[in-house]
Amino acid sequence: MAETSPLAPGAFPELPAVAGVRLAAHAAGLRYQERADLFLAEIAEGTTVAGVFTSSLCPSAPVDWCRRILPNGTARAVVCNSGNANAFTGRAGETSAQMTAEVIAAELRTRPDEVFLASTGVIGETLPDAALAAALPALVSGLAPSSPAGWRAAADSIRTTDTFAKGSFAAIAGTEAAVVGIAKGSGMIAPDMATMLAFVFTDLEVPAPLLQAALNASVERSFNRITVDSDTSTSDTVLAFATGADGAHAGVVDSPGYTAFRAALDTVLLDLAHQVVRDGEGATKFVTVTVTGAEHETAAKRIALSIANSPLVKTALAAEDANWGRIVMAVGKAGERADRDALTIHIGPELVASQGVVHPDYSEARATRHLQGDEVDIIVDVGIGDGAATVWTCDLTHGYIDINAGYRS
Amino acid sequence: MAETSPLAPGAFPELPAVAGVRLAAHAAGLRYQERADLFLAEIAEGTTVAGVFTSSLCPSAPVDWCRRILPNGTARAVVCNSGNANAFTGRAGETSAQMTAEVIAAELRTRPDEVFLASTGVIGETLPDAALAAALPALVSGLAPSSPAGWRAAADSIRTTDTFAKGSFAAIAGTEAAVVGIAKGSGMIAPDMATMLAFVFTDLEVPAPLLQAALNASVERSFNRITVDSDTSTSDTVLAFATGADGAHAGVVDSPGYTAFRAALDTVLLDLAHQVVRDGEGATKFVTVTVTGAEHETAAKRIALSIANSPLVKTALAAEDANWGRIVMAVGKAGERADRDALTIHIGPELVASQGVVHPDYSEARATRHLQGDEVDIIVDVGIGDGAATVWTCDLTHGYIDINAGYRS
Repeated sequence: MAETSPLAPGAFPELPAVAGVRLAAHAAGLRYQERADLFLAEIAEGTTVAGVFTSSLCPSAPVDWCRRILPNGTARAVVCNSGNANAFTGRAGETSAQMTAEVIAAELRTRPDEVFLASTGVIGETLPDAALAAALPALVSGLAPSSPAGWRAAADSIRTTDTFAKGSFAAIAGTEAAVVGIAKGSGMIAPDMATMLAFVFTDLEVPAPLLQAALNASVERSFNRITVDSDTSTSDTVLAFATGADGAHAGVVDSPGYTAFRAALDTVLLDLAHQVVRDGEGATKFVTVTVTGAEHETAAKRIALSIANSPLVKTALAAEDANWGRIVMAVGKAGERADRDALTIHIGPELVASQGVVHPDYSEARATRHLQGDEVDIIVDVGIGDGAATVWTCDLTHGYIDINAGYRS
Repeated sequence: MAETSPLAPGAFPELPAVAGVRLAAHAAGLRYQERADLFLAEIAEGTTVAGVFTSSLCPSAPVDWCRRILPNGTARAVVCNSGNANAFTGRAGETSAQMTAEVIAAELRTRPDEVFLASTGVIGETLPDAALAAALPALVSGLAPSSPAGWRAAADSIRTTDTFAKGSFAAIAGTEAAVVGIAKGSGMIAPDMATMLAFVFTDLEVPAPLLQAALNASVERSFNRITVDSDTSTSDTVLAFATGADGAHAGVVDSPGYTAFRAALDTVLLDLAHQVVRDGEGATKFVTVTVTGAEHETAAKRIALSIANSPLVKTALAAEDANWGRIVMAVGKAGERADRDALTIHIGPELVASQGVVHPDYSEARATRHLQGDEVDIIVDVGIGDGAATVWTCDLTHGYIDINAGYRS
């Protein structure tokens, strides 16, 4: 496995138990050897569920499956394998998905349409159904109440090119409940959604429609605002489960309980999204791009993503080169209104350009000093209106080429 | 200067004289030392002109200038400097452009609004007006009738990161006239238009509206169908000049003369566009992506560009890795209708997948053999309709990072 990203957080967090969630991880040897490649969460009866999926028009079989069962609004389990995406596998892929849900449902004495599925890894290869079927009972028998060690093992089992396991949690103000999430993803990351899986659990009781509304809003400001390489996976999945086992209720829209839940969910998803960027393939810089003064928020997001996805901007950042002309280029190609002659650009605290020309006090040495850090801020005002948005990305380095010109696992 | 691209054509072509065109190149030392960095073509009175420019909303001062004078429909000269794009230079940039046109117009005894301008190089730095003004008379005094050596010197003088000079010509059937073009460009290449300049000359007489219509159509099928890195420059410019000095007339729409002219123009622009891709920064493969079976031609083009711009596809091609799952991913993210379960994919002659699954006779060894060549073909049928389009790109290698993490010239 590759070296841990230099941008990784210090340590995997101590994720608390979530009442009503049992966890298992198992080494089935489907592709990876000597590591867990299957993850299962069993969730208490009555759990509500919400999901957001890839915008790809060639989605994987598990994404099709989840979309089909999501409208029921309830869940009893989620199963994930790593190493094989079960995407572009035709009828065989559907069969693998159906079989997995049926075996797990039988083992857990529930219905297949309450078993959610995710797969991540290589596209276009069928899953070894016999080996998978044989491994599922062992996976189930490993279930244990959620715990810090269980979350850690779960987060490890869903990794592919990830160089570190990703987890996050937040307490829900005014309750004993929490939001806990794990995620994977380091390449093929782009809005809307990435090669990225995230599973989020809360012991609060949240009705499915409110859970879905909260998840949609939270994903839009987290996973849909990160980009590593502008590519979008066939498999992206974010699932949120509310067991209600804590006994506390989220209440109704605009209630303090629901507001507190949404704040905790936002915190967890944004933290997980940032961790995905910090594990961007080959990344050496964590880059925050903020655009203000756009026609509206959507325009601001589009301009920010144009900057964040530009290979020329990202290679300049890798080289710690304050080549801000490339930022202008990326603003210009975004296709959104911008007043070239009112453009203001900051690199970190340094005012690079204002009124469409380089600022008289601009110091390239100071801008370069900012770029030499691990965390880079680019702030652009396009001089049109009040629209603002922030997105996060990383630089483009030799490491990205190394990983992707070799990866097939 | 970097080593010549391994995909470069064997030699710079012997470009024929074009009646009514005189050429000069001059080393002004504006940024580059010991090489020509200024290009001038003087064109006979009565020359018609057409132009296509960057879609960037932050265009350079020369692009603004050309757009302003183009409606006149006539031209007497085109001047280009390399090393400085005169983009994002505010009022100073406008002044540099105006000054250049005025000095050249005075020297050539014509009007400034018949002097077309282009600049290529670094963004955001003002041109050294005094040095430029001092060099222009020397540039004019170097004018000589167009010739193979003159075209070669011109093509060299407009290079920036180009590793080889780019030129092409085609005879116009049924006439003594020809179409001759030179171009530059190797990075920041994306539709619509690229960091790419092309100047095309013919001694046929072509009325300006017909010249513009021919140029629009030809650019759409050449420069707008190539991509190196999905970035779009502030400076992209294609200018076509018809001197009429040969005495032959293009005639009217649908006439044999106009049809022959359009065919020659298509040939030259497509050849120049391919040369730009062959000089793609760090390129080791020339990649042709054809999409068929799309809803319409625009959808086919968009899907083809989604494949051609995908960093994951391009890094796999660099590694000669038949990772066709990434092609599926790129089809899925294009946002155009595609029937996942009817998808057909060829890598060169090898049928990889049909009916949405890997083909039973697919041989990865044969696909890899195709990928080991310099020229790679990817053909995808998306199973919806009759729309088809071909685009051209290159692979994404360490060389791209090397060039762009260091380049500032």
